[in-house]
Amino acid sequence: MPNKRTEISELGEFALIDRLTADFAPSNATTLCGVGDDAAVVDAGGGEALLVATDTMLEGIDFDLTYFPLKHLGYKAVTVGVSDILAMNALPGQIMLSLGVSSKFSVEALEEFYEGVRFACRELGADLAGGDISASVTGFVVGITAVGRAKKESIAYRSGAQQNDLICITGNLGAAYMGLHLLEREKRVLKDVAEPEPQFGGYEYLLEKYLRPCARKDIVESLAEEGIVPTSMIDLSDGLASDLMQICKSSKCGARIYLDRIPIAKQTTALAEEMHTDPVIAALNGGEDYELLFTVPLAMQEKVMRMGGVDVIGHVTAENTGAYLVTPDGSDIRLKAQGFKE
Amino acid sequence: MPNKRTEISELGEFALIDRLTADFAPSNATTLCGVGDDAAVVDAGGGEALLVATDTMLEGIDFDLTYFPLKHLGYKAVTVGVSDILAMNALPGQIMLSLGVSSKFSVEALEEFYEGVRFACRELGADLAGGDISASVTGFVVGITAVGRAKKESIAYRSGAQQNDLICITGNLGAAYMGLHLLEREKRVLKDVAEPEPQFGGYEYLLEKYLRPCARKDIVESLAEEGIVPTSMIDLSDGLASDLMQICKSSKCGARIYLDRIPIAKQTTALAEEMHTDPVIAALNGGEDYELLFTVPLAMQEKVMRMGGVDVIGHVTAENTGAYLVTPDGSDIRLKAQGFKE
Repeated sequence: MPNKRTEISELGEFALIDRLTADFAPSNATTLCGVGDDAAVVDAGGGEALLVATDTMLEGIDFDLTYFPLKHLGYKAVTVGVSDILAMNALPGQIMLSLGVSSKFSVEALEEFYEGVRFACRELGADLAGGDISASVTGFVVGITAVGRAKKESIAYRSGAQQNDLICITGNLGAAYMGLHLLEREKRVLKDVAEPEPQFGGYEYLLEKYLRPCARKDIVESLAEEGIVPTSMIDLSDGLASDLMQICKSSKCGARIYLDRIPIAKQTTALAEEMHTDPVIAALNGGEDYELLFTVPLAMQEKVMRMGGVDVIGHVTAENTGAYLVTPDGSDIRLKAQGFKE
Repeated sequence: MPNKRTEISELGEFALIDRLTADFAPSNATTLCGVGDDAAVVDAGGGEALLVATDTMLEGIDFDLTYFPLKHLGYKAVTVGVSDILAMNALPGQIMLSLGVSSKFSVEALEEFYEGVRFACRELGADLAGGDISASVTGFVVGITAVGRAKKESIAYRSGAQQNDLICITGNLGAAYMGLHLLEREKRVLKDVAEPEPQFGGYEYLLEKYLRPCARKDIVESLAEEGIVPTSMIDLSDGLASDLMQICKSSKCGARIYLDRIPIAKQTTALAEEMHTDPVIAALNGGEDYELLFTVPLAMQEKVMRMGGVDVIGHVTAENTGAYLVTPDGSDIRLKAQGFKE
């Protein structure tokens, strides 16, 4: 170990990755996009590219098996992987799983997990194309790799947003985060209860968004139907603030988004009120929504509106103007990226 | 959780994967090879295919940070990923890392890991093309995805071995396993010593094979120079017995290998003797050698010999004859696959 010790928390995830990967310039002509996007882009020849994305979900950090049904976890693992492919405006073809399981798992438990995987694969049109299972002494580890394919000219990178582009968002935000908080609350409340009966009435949508989120393949298909190639795109896994700032950083631009245009579901608002918290915080910093954030030229507003299920929440500004949330009273709040999700 | 409980140990890794993935027939025309080989094979058009392999290395199972230098671990992670691509007779192009790190890691420690990654990437001609870092409460988790490329007709699957083919092996076997045992022994012996000075004299090669194994890109290049496409190939990660049985299962064949032809390094034999164990056990069941096992038609014997560094250790037999090790006194020992490495 070297003598100097810099804490990871001093840098945060994004600066850390920048520092660690600074010396890694791509040397192969087939590497169309290296570090710094949702997926690696590899030239496949003939005007096409293959996209490869990889994620790891760790017990105790990304999921809690005391309330996360394994079938849902299998489904969500596929969503997490495929969402990165969709975020490049590409369609998924294959997924691979690399699992670490402890001996406390039964074969039947793993079968439940794979049932969820199979269900998601069918919905998304992706084949399970490999993977391995090894022993783990440190909880359930789910490694997921997703492979997709697209014409080179239709790939949406994080780096293409232009000044005055519209910032668009699918679905609604903050629901997964509130779903997680509901599950955590019931776990706390019922910790010492012999036969726990958690109270989820009225918040089923939030649980679904957290436990079994759908990857937005429909949006990538709609974009193709309308002939739209977003100038930039990212999936909302870390929260709107962090993910928008990734676009700003890669595209060398600023952004202004409007608080009253951020789509938030009724259940999200209701539970936030019940828990005395602000639903906008959930939307901005919650993450795990697996919705898509993308930018399009101003001229495409009509086409985007025709897609349905898409909201324009702001626009791209010049570099170095920063990323701001504009409140209804007209004040500007500077957005901050979150570090590690913990 | 369902009522019936089958222990994972009842099935073993390979039967477990078969059972879990039984219902996953590929539905996309681009999926040339799904579950059951070293890497997924995705049609890239124009007679080419991309190969994607994924692996996870877990602290406490796959490595012990008390004696595994992080720089070597980074190097080995690349070897583990790229070796799966080479095992399909393809060359690596990109790798991606997905890390789970605890807060006990410093930025400098991660930089050491990435230094090893960079070194291996340069040696193997692979670009680092993405990845992420997340928090872990359960030890260091290294997810590695490797991407390669090959002409479709030159890909070597596990399933193509034919009766009478020669079984070939690169390098020597069992060294990594003995290196691990040496490290474990010194850890035990020096557990309560204030300033430990481990004794590794004379066994440096074994440590190198365990801590810093090289992926055999040179062999894939030599095969191409000689115009050889192996009828089947696999990398030796689980041990000769397990890996040969994978070839037999996929190719629906049997095998006979000869004990006195298995290449074992002098240091491997010396340490095995010192530890009162059989070096052949290390070679058969040790694993982590990251050498290549492949089969070629009998007519290619001369070409294979010309490559150098390759030994013919036996031949492929008819289906259902089983896989056997023939000892110098002529007796046959039936090979058994190992389960989880623990």
